[in-house]
Amino acid sequence: MERKKYPRILFRKRLRELKEDVNEIGQIAIQAHKNAIKAFNNYDKDLLDDVTKARDKIEELSFHLERKCISIIASEQPVAMDLRFIEACIKVGSHLKRIGSLSVNIAEAAKNLKGEEIPARSMEDLNHMANLVQMMLSKGLYSFIDQNMDMARELRHDDDKVDDLFDQSLENVTSSMFQNKDSISYMIYLLFIARFLERIADRAVSLGDRTIFMITCEKPKKLELKK
Amino acid sequence: MERKKYPRILFRKRLRELKEDVNEIGQIAIQAHKNAIKAFNNYDKDLLDDVTKARDKIEELSFHLERKCISIIASEQPVAMDLRFIEACIKVGSHLKRIGSLSVNIAEAAKNLKGEEIPARSMEDLNHMANLVQMMLSKGLYSFIDQNMDMARELRHDDDKVDDLFDQSLENVTSSMFQNKDSISYMIYLLFIARFLERIADRAVSLGDRTIFMITCEKPKKLELKK
Repeated sequence: MERKKYPRILFRKRLRELKEDVNEIGQIAIQAHKNAIKAFNNYDKDLLDDVTKARDKIEELSFHLERKCISIIASEQPVAMDLRFIEACIKVGSHLKRIGSLSVNIAEAAKNLKGEEIPARSMEDLNHMANLVQMMLSKGLYSFIDQNMDMARELRHDDDKVDDLFDQSLENVTSSMFQNKDSISYMIYLLFIARFLERIADRAVSLGDRTIFMITCEKPKKLELKK
Repeated sequence: MERKKYPRILFRKRLRELKEDVNEIGQIAIQAHKNAIKAFNNYDKDLLDDVTKARDKIEELSFHLERKCISIIASEQPVAMDLRFIEACIKVGSHLKRIGSLSVNIAEAAKNLKGEEIPARSMEDLNHMANLVQMMLSKGLYSFIDQNMDMARELRHDDDKVDDLFDQSLENVTSSMFQNKDSISYMIYLLFIARFLERIADRAVSLGDRTIFMITCEKPKKLELKK
């Protein structure tokens, strides 16, 4: 008789549940980022509260996800791709947690920009960045959920675009500060927001890298060092 | 006969090895941060290279640490404190990895400040912050290695000081920019360095929180949300 450690029906069910959990957390993170950008464009205390609540929810859910993953590893002793999938769930959970915190950072920075006059060019730069990042977040999440390597690989190129936009907005914000000294005290928050967006993009890339590692066993380190 | 799943000699040995691994990675991270600050005070390409190499080494070592931890969980099915210790090793590894990257960020930002005139006040603020952060890093690492709850708890208060210094340096840098428009293009890197230091301090706090959770089972989430 063939040694059939897997598939065990219950085990498969537990893996499916993990994927559903990751998807749930991912959707909350994507929404948190959207609301943070809304707050940047039109600050509103309720939006900041929404993003903060989302961050807390993500922390709680990813904490439970991690416990579940560890308990499955201990009780089922999965191997190969199954093991890598469970490990990936832990990592993806912690990336999503960080994306939640960075979204709160954006919404909080937006508070400092409320009512201030922001150069149209900087608004455009940052919204352009935010749109790319939003798309990268979805790609990162769905590349993992659907185990789609092509989508995961695209994220590296997307990230280059975000990096270019980051440099561009740094330059534009700096020259605006130069033209209008009075704007310095709040314009620095535009710099921070650009930086937060760039960090979220990095996390989206990490979601893709983890997906690639899960499927191919290609070490994320090598990928990460490419940049 | 008493059911003696633990202590098994080999199992204990493997746990000791994990602790040694964490300590090794921690020492490299502490040194990377020191070199990054040296580069800030007196930029030198070799220092940037050292920090980058340290970051790469940390990534490699923490990757192997994670594999080891997962394999111990799967093969030994540890419970309670032993399990929490192993999980903590994974988390601590990933915090140290992030500290390595942030150190590279500091050294790279320092490159942009090379040869520029930086106001003495800002140099003082940032060095003050860097010293506190250096001390927090050690505390974070040793609180985990020695399972010292008091040390772990102190980190929250240390972090408040770092946050105050961050606000202070933000204010000082902004007012220097205001006085000397030509400085804006490089002074923004001081803001970024302040932010990187603040992020490293947060990671040091996370090391302490993880230690507390490992010992008391008190959820890190609650602690994290306190700020």
